[in-house]
Amino acid sequence: MKKKLSIPSIKRLCMMFQQCDELKALGIGRVSSTQLGKKIGVPAHTVRKDINCLGEVGDTGSGYDVARLRQHLERALGFEQVRKACIVGLGHLGCALMNYEKFPESGFLVKAGFDSSVNRIETLQARIPVYPAYDMKEVVRREGIELALLAVPAEAAQDTADTLVAAGISGIVNFAPIILKIPEAHVQVRNMNVINEMRVLSSLMTLGV
Amino acid sequence: MKKKLSIPSIKRLCMMFQQCDELKALGIGRVSSTQLGKKIGVPAHTVRKDINCLGEVGDTGSGYDVARLRQHLERALGFEQVRKACIVGLGHLGCALMNYEKFPESGFLVKAGFDSSVNRIETLQARIPVYPAYDMKEVVRREGIELALLAVPAEAAQDTADTLVAAGISGIVNFAPIILKIPEAHVQVRNMNVINEMRVLSSLMTLGV
Repeated sequence: MKKKLSIPSIKRLCMMFQQCDELKALGIGRVSSTQLGKKIGVPAHTVRKDINCLGEVGDTGSGYDVARLRQHLERALGFEQVRKACIVGLGHLGCALMNYEKFPESGFLVKAGFDSSVNRIETLQARIPVYPAYDMKEVVRREGIELALLAVPAEAAQDTADTLVAAGISGIVNFAPIILKIPEAHVQVRNMNVINEMRVLSSLMTLGV
Repeated sequence: MKKKLSIPSIKRLCMMFQQCDELKALGIGRVSSTQLGKKIGVPAHTVRKDINCLGEVGDTGSGYDVARLRQHLERALGFEQVRKACIVGLGHLGCALMNYEKFPESGFLVKAGFDSSVNRIETLQARIPVYPAYDMKEVVRREGIELALLAVPAEAAQDTADTLVAAGISGIVNFAPIILKIPEAHVQVRNMNVINEMRVLSSLMTLGV
């Protein structure tokens, strides 16, 4: 039976999918819910509950067949569909993202890069088509881009996000150190903030959790 | 009364701390738990519960005084203490991190960068001292570095993490797209994986959550 999934469940299932890839690369054919849970830091019963939310995989008890579990997650979470993405802000971080070579093998096509500096656009050694920021709306629509990696400075992040939402984007990975205000319920944001992660580590050290 | 905090609680409290900074910058002096909750995507009672876990802040009902809440979180989570960090792997991402200017104002001192390529170390335009990877253990110990930002390729991530743990590091922000095996219970890892975040967005789009 399929149940409505929470965002933490989806996050765990995405980590399990990543784990299946790692196990496959190591030539490991079977994995138990205990082993999967250990890897992603949750109890075995949470692993089984999450997976069961997506419907029948076929086998448990003696563990999961890695290839079958991977395929099951791939189908249920829609990873067979290639999604188009863009990188907004081509400073150090944006360029690092532009040079990251894992996107195509992971089912993401980076179709465009944008920057507000026309000078930067003209001088950049880019592997993907790059455009000035004022072309963003048009290019996003024309290329059918669904996801944006937002790597602009904090001051520009909210305005840029508004433009992306107006262009019809469905999801934003936000690297800027601000919490975006997105009233549109169908647009999802994931925050990636290195300072916040360092603060979590720092708190754990302080509190001795 | 102080209670034991869970990692999700700590994550939320770190986001609230970030939020206090943003509100302060906007000149906003008071904030309600409802407003805070909306910003970080949780109900108001979760905000109050998390904050109460850290002991008395002083005021609720009419909301929190932003400056007082910020100070309360800063003390309780140990953010007054400056933590030393290093960047391991000085490719595109490592260099982007090296050029990120928010570390000092956020209470983190980046004391060193490491790379396995001596050639890269010698030719890099670096703002911080950079060392060949074989000096890692010695430099981490000598400088009292507690946190590592791990930006090496996936193939090198586990070995590098092992060296960091052996050098006495307490926390790792892992950018490599693998799940690290760290048997030492006192060493915490936070994963920052852009592909995983894009997959979460993609799943949300597929499932229409």
